[in-house]
Amino acid sequence: MRRKSFDDMDCSVAGTLDLVGDPWTLLIVRDLLSGLTRFDLLLDNLGISRNTLASRLESLCEHELVQRSEYQSNPPRFDYRLTEKGWELRFVIISLMKWGDQWCAEGDPPVEIFEKGTNRILDPVLVDRTTGVPLSDLSFRTRSTRTEA
Amino acid sequence: MRRKSFDDMDCSVAGTLDLVGDPWTLLIVRDLLSGLTRFDLLLDNLGISRNTLASRLESLCEHELVQRSEYQSNPPRFDYRLTEKGWELRFVIISLMKWGDQWCAEGDPPVEIFEKGTNRILDPVLVDRTTGVPLSDLSFRTRSTRTEA
Repeated sequence: MRRKSFDDMDCSVAGTLDLVGDPWTLLIVRDLLSGLTRFDLLLDNLGISRNTLASRLESLCEHELVQRSEYQSNPPRFDYRLTEKGWELRFVIISLMKWGDQWCAEGDPPVEIFEKGTNRILDPVLVDRTTGVPLSDLSFRTRSTRTEA
Repeated sequence: MRRKSFDDMDCSVAGTLDLVGDPWTLLIVRDLLSGLTRFDLLLDNLGISRNTLASRLESLCEHELVQRSEYQSNPPRFDYRLTEKGWELRFVIISLMKWGDQWCAEGDPPVEIFEKGTNRILDPVLVDRTTGVPLSDLSFRTRSTRTEA
């Protein structure tokens, strides 16, 4: 089933959801971010059907979020790695994770984020780049509204 | 169609996607964040079917992300507002939007985020709470891995 495209909405949220809005796709991205790269490992970790995984990976490759490479030629075996475009989705995954830590998880959050070089645990927070102040009292407006004002 | 639940995964990303992983649901949350609160305005802005909107709002209310209130009694009319739990999804929406701004939008991003009190435009960035440094070289691990190590 292919759902309605959000192409006609002039909205970056809708644009992103058009590419990765399927829940399985986001879970595949989560696993790729965690370092799983091989089809069978993804299959096993996700408990997904082979066909669903193959179709989602194909779509991710088609949209250049993931690159497929042969790591063994006989028999041919492939791994899947995030491109820069795909790797940038880590902020989406982190936001989903932080919300779930707060509102869905029982007890301690099951997964933690750490800095690769130092092994230090990170506590991500969204701030304004200019002031460094955490975002709170915010709203959204279309850019044309401001231009016309 | 109700897709597979991710209940059996001990993962906050999956937990969040179980509640709001449907693309329409995220677009409804986007519109509620922007200040649309009435059924007919949401219907009009989303170009969604009446049934789909009603079922997604019902689910959002059931999971206490949205509260429905009667604003007119004769005939009865309701509006829908995000609870604290729903309002906290703004970081998910902002992450989806920022990714789309970078990778999907043509030209200037169509929507900007501003601070309500000051009207100042905000540029959200994800940093580590302790150091204030933007997150870059990160990875994920399950908490039990570290405890066992």
